Amino acid sequence: VSETQTHQSLEAWFRAHGARIRDELFEFLRIPSVSTQPDRRGDVARAAEWLEQAMQRVGLSAEVHPTAGHPVVLGEWRGAPPGAPTILVYGHYDVQPAEPLDLWHSPAFEPEVRDGRIYARGATDDKGQLFLHLKAIEALLALRGALPVNVIVLAEGEEETGSDHLADFIAAQAERLRCDAVVISDSTMFAPGMPALLSALRGIAGFEIFVDGPSGDLHSGTYGGAVVNPAMALARILATLHDENGRIAIPGFYDRVREWPAEWRRRIAELPFDDAGFRAEAGVRELGGEREFSVLERVWMRPTCEVNGLIGGYTGEGSKTVLPARASAKITCRLVPDQDPGEIARLFRAHLERVTPPGVQVRLDYRQGSPGWRADLPEWLLGAARRATRVTFGREPSIVADGGSLPVVTDFERLLGAPTLLLGFGLPGENAHAPNEWLLVDNFERGMLTIAILLDELREVTPA
Amino acid sequence: VSETQTHQSLEAWFRAHGARIRDELFEFLRIPSVSTQPDRRGDVARAAEWLEQAMQRVGLSAEVHPTAGHPVVLGEWRGAPPGAPTILVYGHYDVQPAEPLDLWHSPAFEPEVRDGRIYARGATDDKGQLFLHLKAIEALLALRGALPVNVIVLAEGEEETGSDHLADFIAAQAERLRCDAVVISDSTMFAPGMPALLSALRGIAGFEIFVDGPSGDLHSGTYGGAVVNPAMALARILATLHDENGRIAIPGFYDRVREWPAEWRRRIAELPFDDAGFRAEAGVRELGGEREFSVLERVWMRPTCEVNGLIGGYTGEGSKTVLPARASAKITCRLVPDQDPGEIARLFRAHLERVTPPGVQVRLDYRQGSPGWRADLPEWLLGAARRATRVTFGREPSIVADGGSLPVVTDFERLLGAPTLLLGFGLPGENAHAPNEWLLVDNFERGMLTIAILLDELREVTPA
Repeated sequence: VSETQTHQSLEAWFRAHGARIRDELFEFLRIPSVSTQPDRRGDVARAAEWLEQAMQRVGLSAEVHPTAGHPVVLGEWRGAPPGAPTILVYGHYDVQPAEPLDLWHSPAFEPEVRDGRIYARGATDDKGQLFLHLKAIEALLALRGALPVNVIVLAEGEEETGSDHLADFIAAQAERLRCDAVVISDSTMFAPGMPALLSALRGIAGFEIFVDGPSGDLHSGTYGGAVVNPAMALARILATLHDENGRIAIPGFYDRVREWPAEWRRRIAELPFDDAGFRAEAGVRELGGEREFSVLERVWMRPTCEVNGLIGGYTGEGSKTVLPARASAKITCRLVPDQDPGEIARLFRAHLERVTPPGVQVRLDYRQGSPGWRADLPEWLLGAARRATRVTFGREPSIVADGGSLPVVTDFERLLGAPTLLLGFGLPGENAHAPNEWLLVDNFERGMLTIAILLDELREVTPA
Repeated sequence: VSETQTHQSLEAWFRAHGARIRDELFEFLRIPSVSTQPDRRGDVARAAEWLEQAMQRVGLSAEVHPTAGHPVVLGEWRGAPPGAPTILVYGHYDVQPAEPLDLWHSPAFEPEVRDGRIYARGATDDKGQLFLHLKAIEALLALRGALPVNVIVLAEGEEETGSDHLADFIAAQAERLRCDAVVISDSTMFAPGMPALLSALRGIAGFEIFVDGPSGDLHSGTYGGAVVNPAMALARILATLHDENGRIAIPGFYDRVREWPAEWRRRIAELPFDDAGFRAEAGVRELGGEREFSVLERVWMRPTCEVNGLIGGYTGEGSKTVLPARASAKITCRLVPDQDPGEIARLFRAHLERVTPPGVQVRLDYRQGSPGWRADLPEWLLGAARRATRVTFGREPSIVADGGSLPVVTDFERLLGAPTLLLGFGLPGENAHAPNEWLLVDNFERGMLTIAILLDELREVTPA
């Protein structure tokens, strides 16, 4: 059969089974599997069981694996011809809380289609995007009785609480989970009609800095002018973290920042991105940061050093003329490859030792750290993704990134040594963590077809 | 009679009446005239009436003047020979709250003498020091039937709440209150045995600065690097307020700072001041500020610009990776003559316009202002004070200052045009606003004699 015939038969199958698929998806979305809320524990377990059965129905062998937190659901199909690759699909069946409930136009756990959108908590993040993988597998199995590749589906129930037990599970099951690539649909396209490969994520290094001066708040009249003010000292210290061009001034901070491929920067520059729209979203009149980089480059490929909060002295109503005993700031650095969070902590500490004025003591607490990530996809994997979206969206996926962090990606690469393809079918503005979460019906349907074609495209390639 | 005989007869009178004087003082101290506590309003009124009668008993005509707040008690004696000066004695009969009560070793309003100290709320601030003026007047009237000078005693009941109605009262009664000098005992000596003239007070200009960025807190991953962080912008702005030598870097800030007389600086340098003691009091290992000035000069004669409090973004437990929408700081500048608070506000605002980075909006609220003060005492007044303390303490008063503010002093000079002599008999560490307030019995007794001699010394001088 020709490629076109393959695609047409897949499309026909999805069309023929469309109503049932939607019913099943809605059943999944109706389970309020809110992992952050202890009284939803039973619902999270119910969603895991529902998913196990759904996997079995499509033809996977499946089981629920308990963890110290919410369970992992694992589905497998290992009947591909010798030499075919093994693909691990990751997704999560837990969802964000629906509160505030009164802001929803239809109930969060009563899925409803309006204006071509599926409205429900979890529609895009991530139940809908996880479920379309199962349906792609079902279509291939139904049409051919076999899959072109071996498949492992790993669905966790703790993504929204920080995936606390996932790394341990992967490490413990590493043999079983060995694969040639990880595929994840838990991200967005760049814009309607523009599929995207999420190709870089920033890491993080979180700190709290404490500046201590006098043993208690002092009268600013009696002591002011001779005792160093910790709030002022904190301000002076924070002001040393950047130069006047918005570049971080901690010596050595950029030493390990890996250059981006010129090709990626060129493709990012070609994205239809609107600074004015970004400013409007943020609610600012003017942007800042490193002028020699575009706005998307600043948030995707450049590290940052931001104050998340600061406090010191009297902050109530009116005035109180104290010279404060202490001031502190919470700071997070967003990191990019190949910056190492621990090394950044050391550089930060060394910088503070240089810039701390006499008369105060400074302590830096290093709170958390995870490295940044950039996709390094082999051509067999990247090419398959390009061919798949050319069929379903008429174009290759854009290279995009996210300024935030997604530790699970680095966990997969670190523990399984497999490249990770992040191909999502959501859209910006889908309220993933807000009331009225939605997913475009059209993207859900194109997503099923894209994944089916992707698995098919991976058939004939042999990973290195 | 010789001077020595005069002093001896005064001493003998105070000794003879010592027990009764103490009984009366204790009666005064027993009235819990806490002006800040609404449920003590009756006690404040009772203290005013008690004081009116006490003034009448010593031979003054006296009356209670209601104000919109607590009353003013006014006592007068105007029988001095033609050409004799008129001296206005100011003090206050209201006291600080006594709380926390459980930290007092004897009840706050049950005066008790222990180790040569009178323990009670108001003992030094200011009932004890006001009362010793009445007894000095009584002694002179008792011994001679007349005072050497005309005397007005003005006692207010709102000092501890900010003297809200005093300036209006003085302005309304300016004719009646016209005088050649104001004498106040509401301050401390420099050290035991070292009487002091409080000769300078710093003024104040109070501000709040708001730095606004995005319309709401943003995700620091999604926007960090391209949106200016208001907390960081605030830090960078605050860091421009001083140079690296601790000097205020607001252009024009020092333009009106009046030089101190070399003689004053020399006398301040000779004071037995211990940097280590000051550090220990403040609880710091090292001092800061302008190195070319001594510690006492820094807190007494130099202006400051201090952060009293700052806040922005997430300040709760743990971390929250926000790019804050706003950050703010409360700032007070301590001012010295001839800095003008309004002009300082204008200079500050102009400075902010220069240093505010693009991407944020800055607003400066000017909250309060009062100028600094420096005594400019005529020789007839200063000489009389010197001669008085030579008799009672064996030395001339030291020239001292206070880094805080005392608006009433500038009010008297502004509204009555009279020089103000601040000669106090308290001691550092007397817990004026804390539990276990005390006044040395010896200083109370020397205080009465000093004031009696001072009034006597003022007899023969003719003010300019």
